[in-house]
Amino acid sequence: MEVEKAYLSGLELVEDSKIVMVSNNGEDGYPYTKAMMRLKHDGLYKFWLSTNTSSKRVQLFKNDNRANLYFVDENSFKGLMLVGTIEVLQDRESKEMLWSEGCEIYYPLGIDDPDYTVLCFTAAWGSFYQGLENTGFKIDEK
Amino acid sequence: MEVEKAYLSGLELVEDSKIVMVSNNGEDGYPYTKAMMRLKHDGLYKFWLSTNTSSKRVQLFKNDNRANLYFVDENSFKGLMLVGTIEVLQDRESKEMLWSEGCEIYYPLGIDDPDYTVLCFTAAWGSFYQGLENTGFKIDEK
Repeated sequence: MEVEKAYLSGLELVEDSKIVMVSNNGEDGYPYTKAMMRLKHDGLYKFWLSTNTSSKRVQLFKNDNRANLYFVDENSFKGLMLVGTIEVLQDRESKEMLWSEGCEIYYPLGIDDPDYTVLCFTAAWGSFYQGLENTGFKIDEK
Repeated sequence: MEVEKAYLSGLELVEDSKIVMVSNNGEDGYPYTKAMMRLKHDGLYKFWLSTNTSSKRVQLFKNDNRANLYFVDENSFKGLMLVGTIEVLQDRESKEMLWSEGCEIYYPLGIDDPDYTVLCFTAAWGSFYQGLENTGFKIDEK
């Protein structure tokens, strides 16, 4: 598959996905994976996710920001892996930007809930899988 | 959630899943995630998966066997994470045990296709997520 097509197919898969699998390095040296809601993104370059400040993951990302985002369609067996880093954001602007109706379920005190944290993932490269074929590509700000 | 219930709910999620997300440590220090077919398992303790011998992952697992299996139901937002190790098996018994009709798509030469490898994952512990709650449990052979 051509790189351009792989990028666009990956983007389509992102748009069609409600969730994303986020992986990080555990402090025990094992990879850890967890599904999160796919909230906001800028192409395949930036992804903003929300999580609980109190979660162990936030602390882990502060120590080791290397991460993996994975999107999958199990029916067509397409997969997109993005490799990059995650930044932990706790400024009000980021928290307002990502806030939407329904977030109160997770953060009952609202935008200023101290347990509300924004994670910003920046991709360095990606790989799109379809039809037994992997196509890798670099990702830059556009 | 009680541990026993979390284990059984996790097992139910496994049975309902066609695919599993498999994560490993990349040689660059980043976690890598990929979906694989959920083929055969023994409770939450052992999972057998098939892959291409030529894949980079097989070599990586020989050097670093730490892995993560993740199952998710995006509709009910249940998730099961299993942490453990992966063994690379290339003996005929294992390859026969996992072989089924349709495998020829991936391994055209059949059971003895040198590009056919069995991965055996052994879980040490798991964590089941449902309703904003994580329940962790150890996993032993039963």
